[in-house]
Amino acid sequence: MTGDAELDHDRRRRTGVPEVVLGQGKTPGQTLALLAALRRGDPSGPALATRCPEAVLAAAPGAFPGETVTVDVLGRTVVVGALPAPRGDTVVLTAGTADVPVARECATTLAVLGVAAEVIPDVGVAGLHRLLGRLERLREAHAVVVVAGMDGALPSVVAGLVAAPVIGVPTSVGYGVAAGGLAAAASMLATCAPGLVVVNVDNGFGAAVHAAKIEGLAADG
Amino acid sequence: MTGDAELDHDRRRRTGVPEVVLGQGKTPGQTLALLAALRRGDPSGPALATRCPEAVLAAAPGAFPGETVTVDVLGRTVVVGALPAPRGDTVVLTAGTADVPVARECATTLAVLGVAAEVIPDVGVAGLHRLLGRLERLREAHAVVVVAGMDGALPSVVAGLVAAPVIGVPTSVGYGVAAGGLAAAASMLATCAPGLVVVNVDNGFGAAVHAAKIEGLAADG
Amino acid sequence: MTGDAELDHDRRRRTGVPEVVLGQGKTPGQTLALLAALRRGDPSGPALATRCPEAVLAAAPGAFPGETVTVDVLGRTVVVGALPAPRGDTVVLTAGTADVPVARECATTLAVLGVAAEVIPDVGVAGLHRLLGRLERLREAHAVVVVAGMDGALPSVVAGLVAAPVIGVPTSVGYGVAAGGLAAAASMLATCAPGLVVVNVDNGFGAAVHAAKIEGLAADG
Amino acid sequence: MTGDAELDHDRRRRTGVPEVVLGQGKTPGQTLALLAALRRGDPSGPALATRCPEAVLAAAPGAFPGETVTVDVLGRTVVVGALPAPRGDTVVLTAGTADVPVARECATTLAVLGVAAEVIPDVGVAGLHRLLGRLERLREAHAVVVVAGMDGALPSVVAGLVAAPVIGVPTSVGYGVAAGGLAAAASMLATCAPGLVVVNVDNGFGAAVHAAKIEGLAADG
Amino acid sequence: MTGDAELDHDRRRRTGVPEVVLGQGKTPGQTLALLAALRRGDPSGPALATRCPEAVLAAAPGAFPGETVTVDVLGRTVVVGALPAPRGDTVVLTAGTADVPVARECATTLAVLGVAAEVIPDVGVAGLHRLLGRLERLREAHAVVVVAGMDGALPSVVAGLVAAPVIGVPTSVGYGVAAGGLAAAASMLATCAPGLVVVNVDNGFGAAVHAAKIEGLAADG
Amino acid sequence: MTGDAELDHDRRRRTGVPEVVLGQGKTPGQTLALLAALRRGDPSGPALATRCPEAVLAAAPGAFPGETVTVDVLGRTVVVGALPAPRGDTVVLTAGTADVPVARECATTLAVLGVAAEVIPDVGVAGLHRLLGRLERLREAHAVVVVAGMDGALPSVVAGLVAAPVIGVPTSVGYGVAAGGLAAAASMLATCAPGLVVVNVDNGFGAAVHAAKIEGLAADG
Amino acid sequence: MTGDAELDHDRRRRTGVPEVVLGQGKTPGQTLALLAALRRGDPSGPALATRCPEAVLAAAPGAFPGETVTVDVLGRTVVVGALPAPRGDTVVLTAGTADVPVARECATTLAVLGVAAEVIPDVGVAGLHRLLGRLERLREAHAVVVVAGMDGALPSVVAGLVAAPVIGVPTSVGYGVAAGGLAAAASMLATCAPGLVVVNVDNGFGAAVHAAKIEGLAADG
Amino acid sequence: MTGDAELDHDRRRRTGVPEVVLGQGKTPGQTLALLAALRRGDPSGPALATRCPEAVLAAAPGAFPGETVTVDVLGRTVVVGALPAPRGDTVVLTAGTADVPVARECATTLAVLGVAAEVIPDVGVAGLHRLLGRLERLREAHAVVVVAGMDGALPSVVAGLVAAPVIGVPTSVGYGVAAGGLAAAASMLATCAPGLVVVNVDNGFGAAVHAAKIEGLAADG
Repeated sequence: MTGDAELDHDRRRRTGVPEVVLGQGKTPGQTLALLAALRRGDPSGPALATRCPEAVLAAAPGAFPGETVTVDVLGRTVVVGALPAPRGDTVVLTAGTADVPVARECATTLAVLGVAAEVIPDVGVAGLHRLLGRLERLREAHAVVVVAGMDGALPSVVAGLVAAPVIGVPTSVGYGVAAGGLAAAASMLATCAPGLVVVNVDNGFGAAVHAAKIEGLAADG
Repeated sequence: MTGDAELDHDRRRRTGVPEVVLGQGKTPGQTLALLAALRRGDPSGPALATRCPEAVLAAAPGAFPGETVTVDVLGRTVVVGALPAPRGDTVVLTAGTADVPVARECATTLAVLGVAAEVIPDVGVAGLHRLLGRLERLREAHAVVVVAGMDGALPSVVAGLVAAPVIGVPTSVGYGVAAGGLAAAASMLATCAPGLVVVNVDNGFGAAVHAAKIEGLAADG
Repeated sequence: MTGDAELDHDRRRRTGVPEVVLGQGKTPGQTLALLAALRRGDPSGPALATRCPEAVLAAAPGAFPGETVTVDVLGRTVVVGALPAPRGDTVVLTAGTADVPVARECATTLAVLGVAAEVIPDVGVAGLHRLLGRLERLREAHAVVVVAGMDGALPSVVAGLVAAPVIGVPTSVGYGVAAGGLAAAASMLATCAPGLVVVNVDNGFGAAVHAAKIEGLAADG
Repeated sequence: MTGDAELDHDRRRRTGVPEVVLGQGKTPGQTLALLAALRRGDPSGPALATRCPEAVLAAAPGAFPGETVTVDVLGRTVVVGALPAPRGDTVVLTAGTADVPVARECATTLAVLGVAAEVIPDVGVAGLHRLLGRLERLREAHAVVVVAGMDGALPSVVAGLVAAPVIGVPTSVGYGVAAGGLAAAASMLATCAPGLVVVNVDNGFGAAVHAAKIEGLAADG
Repeated sequence: MTGDAELDHDRRRRTGVPEVVLGQGKTPGQTLALLAALRRGDPSGPALATRCPEAVLAAAPGAFPGETVTVDVLGRTVVVGALPAPRGDTVVLTAGTADVPVARECATTLAVLGVAAEVIPDVGVAGLHRLLGRLERLREAHAVVVVAGMDGALPSVVAGLVAAPVIGVPTSVGYGVAAGGLAAAASMLATCAPGLVVVNVDNGFGAAVHAAKIEGLAADG
Repeated sequence: MTGDAELDHDRRRRTGVPEVVLGQGKTPGQTLALLAALRRGDPSGPALATRCPEAVLAAAPGAFPGETVTVDVLGRTVVVGALPAPRGDTVVLTAGTADVPVARECATTLAVLGVAAEVIPDVGVAGLHRLLGRLERLREAHAVVVVAGMDGALPSVVAGLVAAPVIGVPTSVGYGVAAGGLAAAASMLATCAPGLVVVNVDNGFGAAVHAAKIEGLAADG
Repeated sequence: MTGDAELDHDRRRRTGVPEVVLGQGKTPGQTLALLAALRRGDPSGPALATRCPEAVLAAAPGAFPGETVTVDVLGRTVVVGALPAPRGDTVVLTAGTADVPVARECATTLAVLGVAAEVIPDVGVAGLHRLLGRLERLREAHAVVVVAGMDGALPSVVAGLVAAPVIGVPTSVGYGVAAGGLAAAASMLATCAPGLVVVNVDNGFGAAVHAAKIEGLAADG
Repeated sequence: MTGDAELDHDRRRRTGVPEVVLGQGKTPGQTLALLAALRRGDPSGPALATRCPEAVLAAAPGAFPGETVTVDVLGRTVVVGALPAPRGDTVVLTAGTADVPVARECATTLAVLGVAAEVIPDVGVAGLHRLLGRLERLREAHAVVVVAGMDGALPSVVAGLVAAPVIGVPTSVGYGVAAGGLAAAASMLATCAPGLVVVNVDNGFGAAVHAAKIEGLAADG
């Protein structure tokens, strides 16, 4: 069932990050089989699948007997195997409540990669005091991931306030000109705040991988 | 020389705002002739030309003998005739120094329409304290125009902080995905801050007209 | 159930407009819980939810015992609590019948904010006499909201006819190049009529908030 | 010098319209040589070049000794040979003064094709009375060409008022979201007024050819 | 049930074309009620509804007792009342089989407007002999409507072959860069064939109205 | 049932490739009837339908009694008739597992056209060793088709490594800025690797036809 | 002066095509130095620079003493060294006269790669007989490159008429929706003619490399 | 002369990065005055201006008597004051020679921020061995910035090969669909390589700031 996939078991050694299953565009059977193969191929850490359809989320708990299986329905992730002990300190902010699923994908990926992550939801710029009240906490973090749809303004504001590297994640939350997340992505790329970097729309996973690489340097530097 | 134009001398009575000459897309001769015709047709207030090319800005002071002529090279405006006494209180913010020409077009238009306007430049979100330090002043204003290119984030932040109506003016300041101002315009339209309204890119004139209508209601209400 | 949301009870004091629940992108349970929390947190006025999915519209009447609950299925709004006494005079026009749901969202929001609103539907430019026949009524209004999809031409025509501030709301009504409402939005932003301002596609709520701020100035001016 | 062009002398017989030289993208020498070749190849009517650069406009009067040469600097056209007697009645409207060059290209092409054309400039929707005052004249015409940039709203309004076929010509007049004319083109294609047809941005020539075919049917019908 | 619609019974007198119901964006009940109101308001000709959802197509035959009701499931139209006697000669071509529904909408509208229309399907440019074999027939027509998705090339080819006015209708047939029909629309607007005019994607109705106006001139000329 | 289609039985003689049924946009009945008609019209080779909906894939095996019918559910193809003996050597690579359906459509088409095709899946640039390990195999091929969504980077890398002609097929695999496949298509067209050519998004069929024409020249050259 | 470039002298062995200098984006000095280095590094064939600015075209003849230097001002190419003996038979068509520069870049590249190329200009679809009159010649060719701007329709027509592989080259010739060549590129990618492949806008070079690879297979196959 | 700018002298303390002058959109006089003000306001490090027009590059050496002034004409930067001692190890790759100016802006910014940076130019994917030959060097770096225009493929390839954080910088190098750099930006955002982050087109400065923050964590971690 993994016949059309060529697993990259060497990826962890090469890039510091193990291969992960992207559930979107695969059949539930393919996703579960690839999860099992990843788990067998690299038992040094848990196996992760992201963007899982409902069928995978429902079947996963029963599909890996004897394993710790953690399913996050909101974030659409499945983790097979125990999480490593966390280190570091990455904060994941969201502009709105509807951005939380992307933040959860990000936080779960960070946990799989051994990074301590805290999610602070719903601190968008329409009520700036919510953000300013967290400034002290934000300034302690090693890295800050900012998840925002609609206007995509929050990452630029955060990047002007903290010294840590800031990673913007545009989301597809919104309608009209905001539908699909391209307006938020463009606003983040066009930022007036130096040093803000951006990943694809709804790509909480990618932001987590980048943050984990930064945390690795902070720990080992 | 005004053969291809049909002046709308009735516009002030109908919409509260006199016709104005858009210098862009016209020859310098056409613009100057239309300014003269507007001035003759409606002597109750000054005549305004916006987006004037250099040739118009240079020729205007000598072209209206016996008239008060005010030229703003940065804002690219020409005003023929004395300004009315100002009333009201509109603040025009800019995110960066490069946005100032659009703010000047806005402020000149407000002055022509009899509104008191103050320009506060360079208070973009990369250094939020610059904005927060002006909050008291902003909260006094009847209307706030926020001029911003690049990420277009500033109007959303302002709209979350004040009770006055806020008008966002995206500008073509920026490069890459920000070139042309569409990213800023989209971010403003997609705002998470209720009540922010938007005009065309670089359209300081249009924002001023809307603000002046609001000031009219505030004065006469 | 409000764990991923941070309510902004201070918003009414700060911006003149209370926080509102955007039903889109939230679970029905989240929306109802947030409505209840808003109602509890600020009993000085009704609580509003917009863009509610069918499940919320159906459950709302039974979810707030002892409260006045008003559901508008076409406009997809839920209001919990009695409406304030209306003041002011805002007219909401639509170009076509299919634009009416957006106009209803706008009118309900105005009512929640204490503004008297009249909806005049189906006066698009394909039959201009329908608009011209209402000119006298339009010229009485303090503010005019014009809701239009397809070509988005109506707001420009209206803005050339009245002295009141005009707010254009593009809608996603239409197909082909009009699908999604971006053609209408671009036409409105590109208007030749001075002072027209624009909000996001289908954002009747945002137009209402801006109009209510204008009405506030007119009343208190 | 016509080595890279293959003239289509049969086009008039086949489509009712002779081949024409598009000056854009050709060297001045190529354009003048092609004009001469067209004139020689089909002496039954004048030869036309459109979108001519300055060098062609300047050189044309001296380049065809013994011929009637008509140059329109504003419309950027050159006609070699006498115009045929006009028949029919096509009106060409423009929304603004800056749209006049496109209307002139249209009117010159109509004249070359033997159609009587009247240009009525500057009747855009910001001052609707200018259009309504011409309604009687418009209702006499066989065909109406409406040239408009910016919001592109005028053709939809006209198409709702007259029984004649209406052809919209979007122009590149405008800035910001209107730059390049795509907003106007989209608004015209998305029209709510049945029967409006559209040509490329700034394509006064194409609109004229279509109108001339209609006039041919009206005359010969 | 027609409360949100303002019928334009004067449209036939003013523009030569009666008002028509666009079924898309309306409830089935609204569409049927509007059809009935149109039929009552202007009994001089049949009433037409386009883009009808399945529910309207199914209910229509039983909804107008004593009337001739014609339903075209493929073209998604409903006609209430007898068709007028046809005059003129308009040909409607399609590039492919999947474009036929749009051609049917066009042909039905022509029939309602009293124009004789022939649909010739599936003569796209991938097999040019299919078109060339119909050239004699095409050259007899007063007007030619060409319906094409994907590359949108067929209208340009036809416009180079016939003297009649040619109207291009882009369709949403296709995938990838062709999805939605914008590539076909752009290709038609950018045509190298003089005189081709274009309507919105899938707008067979609009093309028919324009063709009918041309036929009216040809008949009455 | 083939009334709206005009089969092009001459296409194989004219272009070397028989007509094929595109199942998308047709009813299942139309697709099956056209397959039967193609099979009857040109018995010299099998008949192919691509992009078949589920109903066609399910009905096909029983619809052609006495024929060899081959259905590929993943690639959504139906072949009626025996395949010709293969010649040549084309390799079809995919960047990811989710790109395999497009590669299958390509390989099936090649088989129908008599070309030997090998599919090598999941060798995308995130794990470059997977590609480099196949370099020897790739360098034997006459033509290489590279199927990739998301970043669309793989075809450029392959085109820099092999002497055979390389054809890039962008796919709609991906989300955010990659949704719909336009980002992948643009990246392939913008390639820095000389000689890479591109087909429409998900168009495995078109790539196969081009490769088969190349194989024909290689065999017959 | 080649310090910022790393020449790829191995490219001819690896991909069958030597490295070439893209003059655009480089200083004239860089381009000439790289040409000299390429010529020295691989004396087995001529060195080619494409998209050369005027300064390079003017300086090239004097910059390589003792060498055969061929400059094509229209096609903007410089060739240093004698051309190889040609083999094969590739035809390069253009839709219009303004597309010829791109065809010349293509033909020069083919000559450098040892392929016999014939350019046939100005056979666009507005006058189809010009193409049909060349059909016999086209059917002899091994490969056909079709260069077209504006509607981009010609490659689809050609691909339906010949058995040889067809490569479409969109050009930036045109205005309005055609400006920049994206409309032509989209039309070609969306083609209804099986097997048409596409390169970047104005990329005559890339089409030539692909055609040369095909010719290599035809010769060696 | 700094009247329209409000310098943010606190930025270095707040975000770890001092304010910098963006020369684009400012007059030469403004840029030089702001540089002087920055230098005075924060003498703890050098002052930097990016995207300087020629006039600033020419005037800068004479404008700061007694100061070390470093001008990079290719990278368009001016540095006033001595550089700090470098620490860390960031590598800046470019895909092509034309991408070098952006890499120089990046390297100069890193130097100003006290980071050791090495630029390795012209290792694009069309000749992959150039990259693979540097793999050992790349794997030593703390952070890798990859600057690429056209297809934007190089950052995805690099991100699959190294464990360090990788930052992609799209450039405006290219033509046709690559013009402006949006194709490269989209390809990078759509990457299949986990953890790649992206900045605006041509934004070497922003990538440097992010890399410097990472280096700070690596040094202090």
